[in-house]
Amino acid sequence: MSEPGFDADFPAHVERALEKFLREAGDPIRAMEPSTGPGVDALSEFVLGGGKRLRPTFAWWGWRGAGGDPAGPDAEGVLQAVSSLELVQACALIHDDLMDSSDSRRGSPTVHVAFAKRHADHGWLGSAASFGQAAAVLLGDLALAWADDMFAAAPLPATTLAAARPAWRAMRTEVLAGQYLDVHTQATGDSSPEAALRIDRLKTAAYTVQRPLHLGAALAGADDRLIGTLLSFGRDLGVAFQLRDDLLGVFGDPSVTGKPAGDDLREGKRTLLLALGMELAAAQHREAVAAVIADAVGDKDLTEDAVTEVREALTEVGAVAAVERRIDDLTAAALASLDAAELAEPAATRLRELAVQATQRKY
Amino acid sequence: MSEPGFDADFPAHVERALEKFLREAGDPIRAMEPSTGPGVDALSEFVLGGGKRLRPTFAWWGWRGAGGDPAGPDAEGVLQAVSSLELVQACALIHDDLMDSSDSRRGSPTVHVAFAKRHADHGWLGSAASFGQAAAVLLGDLALAWADDMFAAAPLPATTLAAARPAWRAMRTEVLAGQYLDVHTQATGDSSPEAALRIDRLKTAAYTVQRPLHLGAALAGADDRLIGTLLSFGRDLGVAFQLRDDLLGVFGDPSVTGKPAGDDLREGKRTLLLALGMELAAAQHREAVAAVIADAVGDKDLTEDAVTEVREALTEVGAVAAVERRIDDLTAAALASLDAAELAEPAATRLRELAVQATQRKY
Repeated sequence: MSEPGFDADFPAHVERALEKFLREAGDPIRAMEPSTGPGVDALSEFVLGGGKRLRPTFAWWGWRGAGGDPAGPDAEGVLQAVSSLELVQACALIHDDLMDSSDSRRGSPTVHVAFAKRHADHGWLGSAASFGQAAAVLLGDLALAWADDMFAAAPLPATTLAAARPAWRAMRTEVLAGQYLDVHTQATGDSSPEAALRIDRLKTAAYTVQRPLHLGAALAGADDRLIGTLLSFGRDLGVAFQLRDDLLGVFGDPSVTGKPAGDDLREGKRTLLLALGMELAAAQHREAVAAVIADAVGDKDLTEDAVTEVREALTEVGAVAAVERRIDDLTAAALASLDAAELAEPAATRLRELAVQATQRKY
Repeated sequence: MSEPGFDADFPAHVERALEKFLREAGDPIRAMEPSTGPGVDALSEFVLGGGKRLRPTFAWWGWRGAGGDPAGPDAEGVLQAVSSLELVQACALIHDDLMDSSDSRRGSPTVHVAFAKRHADHGWLGSAASFGQAAAVLLGDLALAWADDMFAAAPLPATTLAAARPAWRAMRTEVLAGQYLDVHTQATGDSSPEAALRIDRLKTAAYTVQRPLHLGAALAGADDRLIGTLLSFGRDLGVAFQLRDDLLGVFGDPSVTGKPAGDDLREGKRTLLLALGMELAAAQHREAVAAVIADAVGDKDLTEDAVTEVREALTEVGAVAAVERRIDDLTAAALASLDAAELAEPAATRLRELAVQATQRKY
């Protein structure tokens, strides 16, 4: 049984569901083999330690919008099914941090760094870095396996869960394909706006917005027409969301975003913003400006002053304005799809709020 | 519908099921994002390129032994469900090779090596090794996600599949816990026979024999008593199987095993054989002999002559005889459990044959 209260403070309910699942999944393996304890603890802390719970939230409102009743018998099961998206995300982040050799996440050491430190602190044998790498590979795998376990164990009628399987399948394959495309694009050096947009569509739009909405709506038994409209909404909103992220990654105020200014540049992220910046500079025959942008991408030692220069370059050539305009257009298109979907209230209102927040946020 | 022929040449049926699934899962993502083609191909080739199909085979005979009818309506669905174990195994091997920095597997380059080479051949940007590592992380993840998709999509009644979920859950968590324990034990340098046995129980017995049998029997609706007996059989057989593997890893004939002689030594595997060797040498106050063994473990440049020396040392101190005795005892205990299980024929006979093959094999 559930409470109408699920709608309010939804992320807290997600955390409760995750906490319960992690305890039930972790206790047996910890009891069987105590040396796994630090790994199980690290995964739990990672999952429970933060995040906006964006994917479960989109899934929840997809369910509500397609007629899901928060006071009905399925609500608790749907909460569990959609909360499992956070475990997929844990896998994605832990493995992403490993592939990117990132040192910190949400102000804490990343998993591979924390386990390398554990190795070094104990004075263990062999390479601390290799131990950290192995721990991150295995804990990411565990998160992915547990995501499936949590989803499959959701207390829902078998036909309800089966209806959501296509979305579940597509979501996991698409995020991995998006990650691969990202790595591949960095390797080939394809800096075109088209390449950046393809990554945005797979990594952010499909994985973060479209499939969660699809999953939720399918759990409510939505028909293909409604799912199609939600997928359109999600694609436009998801790309707009990523474009806002790209702008914040270069222009964001560190005191608000919690990340050092220009970190996206140092990490070498090939965003649409940067692709447009280089393309526009080249079209305007401003080779020096194009070089300022190109040289900054992936420069791990980029100074604050150089970040300021890149900001000025992107603004001057019109890339910032172009991205802002795209965000506006995509958001408008997303909201038009949302209107066409004729969702049950309060889902329509809440998804509209989420869309505006996601695309206008400052953090 | 199925044919009684499933019993004969079972691995070929597993390969057919895998080929079909891989095509159906791979085609949409390849069509959506062509750059993922080489990744999808690599995973398919890896999965279809060999292996003894041991885990599906144990699962199949668990199902048959618990009364599953190879001419009944569930046979095709059970084939699909148990074939998915090969995708879990693909994840385990791809990620294991990455963690161990192994260069080759079944005579081909490992996934991270093949993708690093791809990067180098194309003259792409950045580090070829990092690209190879990222590809291996993502393809292992994809294999794990697809394992769940293949299992969950098996055409079986929902209650049948639900009955097998506990085995499915335990199997994936246990193999990851076993891998972690292995890495952890190598780091702490715990060279005790007890530590080696704990790894054998999780990594081999639970994952390769017990849970596949459990999964198969559960798909046939087996009761707790039968499952318990199969778990006993599987624990003893699985450890005996691993001990035979350990002996072959040091004493195997390369022309039969297909692996260089003494490769387990170079890789630094901490097996019960080596643990007993060192323990027995110490008990006999033969410090020089103990040192021969200890120095060989993890020595990547170990010569053929040094391998011969280790073989002599292990034989002299009685470690080989002790491991052979343990294999005999465990096999006898396993076969006694098998008799107690009173399985339907021909499963009892086939599992007995598998047990004898697995523990007496020369490759």
